[in-house]
Amino acid sequence: MPSNRQILLDNRPQGEATASNFKLVTSPTPELQDGQVLVRHHYLSLDPYMRGRMNDSKSYAASQPLGEVMIGGTVGEIVQSRSDKYAVGDLVVGMGGWQEYSVVDAGQSGMLRKVPAGPVPLSAYLGAVGMPGVTAYYGLVHIIDPKPGQTVTVTAASGAVGSAYAALAKARGCRVVGIAGGPDKCRYAEQELGFDVCIDYRAHNQDVRSLAKALKDACPDGIDGHFENVGGWILDAVMLRTNAFARIALCGMIAGYDGQPLPMLNPALILVNRMRVEGFIVSEHMHVWPAALKELGELVASGKLRPRESIAQGIEAAPEAFLGMLRGKNFGKQLVKLI
Amino acid sequence: MPSNRQILLDNRPQGEATASNFKLVTSPTPELQDGQVLVRHHYLSLDPYMRGRMNDSKSYAASQPLGEVMIGGTVGEIVQSRSDKYAVGDLVVGMGGWQEYSVVDAGQSGMLRKVPAGPVPLSAYLGAVGMPGVTAYYGLVHIIDPKPGQTVTVTAASGAVGSAYAALAKARGCRVVGIAGGPDKCRYAEQELGFDVCIDYRAHNQDVRSLAKALKDACPDGIDGHFENVGGWILDAVMLRTNAFARIALCGMIAGYDGQPLPMLNPALILVNRMRVEGFIVSEHMHVWPAALKELGELVASGKLRPRESIAQGIEAAPEAFLGMLRGKNFGKQLVKLI
Repeated sequence: MPSNRQILLDNRPQGEATASNFKLVTSPTPELQDGQVLVRHHYLSLDPYMRGRMNDSKSYAASQPLGEVMIGGTVGEIVQSRSDKYAVGDLVVGMGGWQEYSVVDAGQSGMLRKVPAGPVPLSAYLGAVGMPGVTAYYGLVHIIDPKPGQTVTVTAASGAVGSAYAALAKARGCRVVGIAGGPDKCRYAEQELGFDVCIDYRAHNQDVRSLAKALKDACPDGIDGHFENVGGWILDAVMLRTNAFARIALCGMIAGYDGQPLPMLNPALILVNRMRVEGFIVSEHMHVWPAALKELGELVASGKLRPRESIAQGIEAAPEAFLGMLRGKNFGKQLVKLI
Repeated sequence: MPSNRQILLDNRPQGEATASNFKLVTSPTPELQDGQVLVRHHYLSLDPYMRGRMNDSKSYAASQPLGEVMIGGTVGEIVQSRSDKYAVGDLVVGMGGWQEYSVVDAGQSGMLRKVPAGPVPLSAYLGAVGMPGVTAYYGLVHIIDPKPGQTVTVTAASGAVGSAYAALAKARGCRVVGIAGGPDKCRYAEQELGFDVCIDYRAHNQDVRSLAKALKDACPDGIDGHFENVGGWILDAVMLRTNAFARIALCGMIAGYDGQPLPMLNPALILVNRMRVEGFIVSEHMHVWPAALKELGELVASGKLRPRESIAQGIEAAPEAFLGMLRGKNFGKQLVKLI
């Protein structure tokens, strides 16, 4: 059996996460039992939700146990099979974790999903045609539910969720305005992702009124729907520009993960504008996945959605790539290539 | 024609509202035109939303114009009619304002609503079987939509909205927990309004954790739905005790009316608990009124909903009664009796 390099969570962060929270180990892959398959991972996905799992505190999901392989989405290839369901060579998406191989009970439903070798590149199943894409879809289609001509906004616009959001919103006839950090990401969002405008929040130096002014210029008819990946002062600025009956899909609060509570400055706006603010995690809405993956796959195959990827090489590079992503250093979907 | 005593908004509050913002005048009632009726008001309703209207700032409704009669709900009797639609003696609910008489164009739809002389006392059409009752209904039935056995909470529990909320929630098999100011209101809520428990927030001295602890004791299975009439630190405490998929109907933010922004301490809880927070004003949901008024009328007629009223006497008493209500001095629905 091949040997398997793995990243474990070694200890929990005190405040900001650091590389010393992780530990690289090498283990043999075990012999397969009946019904099991061995997956060789081609790509590992790195996502902000993982930071929340590193804490011991109450969150929407169980904490990542210490001493175990960090959880994470993977796409790979069946290299050994003792299951009727998968043949060697099948391509599969799963939650293989931060490691080069995983052993999976193929009979357990929902563990692996076969994907075709076709016009969609394999890595896209971890991004635009995977969890981030479906996340954008659920927030836009099921919470915001925009009408043609309405204006919708999103934070972390140049990321995996933001890029899918832009393509889905344009397909629905919306004006779509992004918010991202730095002129490079904003230029990319406007020139390659289809955003009508992308605002660089760093130019506003945490000044809510200044950002709200920029949003007013970018959204002359106000904001009808907003998808929040970040939280904090950016959300405060967006709320100031919402129209009556605006919907906010709350998906990420990355700035609060280090333990500081991040207040919402003026929640009375929810009443004044009769808004709906809804938090969600996409894994609780499996019924939307088929329709979402179909539309997202078509958008990628037709070239209407071509998100950029930041690819680190080798499992040993995963911790630094992850920490960089938390600080906004990545450009597009953060992946680790494992072959 | 009878003379008509009226309260005008004379000037806008700087910070807290005071009696000097209002002005009492006496005017003759004008001759009726064809299609008009003269209504003699029996009761005027005083409600928190009026404080918002006194400001010039952006709100969900137009500001109350200076020098005009303060708006307000009234119930009264037709005393002169030049309309086929109403006969002298008919009982009607309308928005007659802070005055003893109003002249109404009976042909304009939605201006007046006939109510029966029957088991429901006339004043109840301004409370339990009127706007406050329908407000409770919309928030509970259409936003929170609780299942039998779920726990739902409400602030300003002993008021007009809170009392209707308790009766509607008990009719749906819920555990209903109120929050109110002072032991008298809490005892009344538990003994006469049907609340399972009512918590005195004043005993917790603006300490979010202390109130959250009391909520934990009162809601051992957590909070599935919450109706917010107040905002601020009480809402922060409630949010700490919400269950996954909790719904919050946001109806009032009375503590913010004097201009201070009231932050929400930990909006990330909306994501952590996948909550839905929705602001509404009941006048935008007229389609629910018939079903709501039917159920509320039956609850009052059967004695299952017997809210207390605080009744001031005479139009000249309206400003002080209103200011007292804003400070929580009233006990139950605040009315002014005008005959």
